[in-house]
Amino acid sequence: MKIAITGKGGVGKTTLAGLLARLLADQGDTVLAIDADPDANFGSAIGITPEALATITPISKMKKLAEKRTGAEGDGMYSLTPHVADIPDKYAINHEGVKLLLLGTVEQGGGGCICPEHALVRTLMKHILFQKGESVVMDMEAGIEHLGRGTAESVDALITVVEPGSRSIQTAKQIQSLAADIGLKNTFVVASKVRNDEELEFLQANISEATLLGILPMSEDVRKADMHNVAPYDLHGEIVEAARGILQRIEEELNQ
Amino acid sequence: MKIAITGKGGVGKTTLAGLLARLLADQGDTVLAIDADPDANFGSAIGITPEALATITPISKMKKLAEKRTGAEGDGMYSLTPHVADIPDKYAINHEGVKLLLLGTVEQGGGGCICPEHALVRTLMKHILFQKGESVVMDMEAGIEHLGRGTAESVDALITVVEPGSRSIQTAKQIQSLAADIGLKNTFVVASKVRNDEELEFLQANISEATLLGILPMSEDVRKADMHNVAPYDLHGEIVEAARGILQRIEEELNQ
Repeated sequence: MKIAITGKGGVGKTTLAGLLARLLADQGDTVLAIDADPDANFGSAIGITPEALATITPISKMKKLAEKRTGAEGDGMYSLTPHVADIPDKYAINHEGVKLLLLGTVEQGGGGCICPEHALVRTLMKHILFQKGESVVMDMEAGIEHLGRGTAESVDALITVVEPGSRSIQTAKQIQSLAADIGLKNTFVVASKVRNDEELEFLQANISEATLLGILPMSEDVRKADMHNVAPYDLHGEIVEAARGILQRIEEELNQ
Repeated sequence: MKIAITGKGGVGKTTLAGLLARLLADQGDTVLAIDADPDANFGSAIGITPEALATITPISKMKKLAEKRTGAEGDGMYSLTPHVADIPDKYAINHEGVKLLLLGTVEQGGGGCICPEHALVRTLMKHILFQKGESVVMDMEAGIEHLGRGTAESVDALITVVEPGSRSIQTAKQIQSLAADIGLKNTFVVASKVRNDEELEFLQANISEATLLGILPMSEDVRKADMHNVAPYDLHGEIVEAARGILQRIEEELNQ
């Protein structure tokens, strides 16, 4: 299963991605987590310390290795990583059954965009071979540019996170439309930061055409987790149970 | 005065940008508001209706006009818009003294990145001529890629919004470092969504090296404004007064 999480900035994408990655790992899956946001913080939502994160070589640096190993120009990602299990440890960090890869960040102000890095992730997603019991969870950058780049074009499901507000709904609608352009059929919505029935009804009324997988309630735990730099999953609160229900729905939808 | 607002997704960038634009206009300035986020919602934070927003031609389409008018290839933006007042009405919408321009969105999934649009905004910012009583407020896309592109390299002040959490602080630190690379000297921080002294102390302890311009408290008004698609400024709450104090601090800092 390859899933990507998207949505407006700050709605709870990384929180959901971290919960799903940890839940899949606890089910016994080998989980590849890909932080496709140059402003990367998927690692902390998985529970990886900043010190450990600093040791990872980002995917953007794999290109040179690919060329070296295959002797070929071009992205060479297919030869480098035919199987999830083959991704070199240098490029990933393991935590509680989740193997994290980083897209790579902006290293120098004025140094240019990160289009090449996105192209590498797109190729990796397209060519990676899966065995039963392997999953990929990809945390996308905020907003919609990744859809222009087609970074997530090969995923099985694109999940858009929305919060009770017009702006995240506007983003979600644009995402659904752009996802259709690149042929993504399985697009779903998760409601986040919901505090009461009024807010839930507002969301339901405004995303009535989308398949709502579930609700992540507004959680003091998540706020505390961010302040203390721990994974929401490790707080074992109601948000973990909510994510468990969402994962079950994803599996049901994809098995249909 | 040319200012740009940046930060992690969802921290309150667009809310602050909308408040500052409207406050500057109320002071009598001619304000040019630029939505430099392809996932654009600066307009609604200024108070412009979705119907009116839909009539604007984005900046990305100005390129052709520039070539046509000047008879030259290249971006031609200098010739097109030497003065703030000269920006054609077709490309802007006026609301309560604020003239809004849009960068342009991702029009087609898989259609590519928005690097050319960023290059146009960068050129516009660099060459536009100011008269006394004219201001630009630019709302950047979430995260850090715009700093790789140098979109805001010509602003007088770059303001990073942070909320009480490790992730937005991590983003802010990276922004400060990348901003230094492109020669931005006046970088400031605004604390957002602060609920109590504990959270404020957390932020102050973690951004102690940055100049804190002020605090936007956590506001039920802002949440409601987003649900009902109105500008936070038009609710006249404590958040407007907080933004007024922040604007005063910006003016003081830049006049030093």
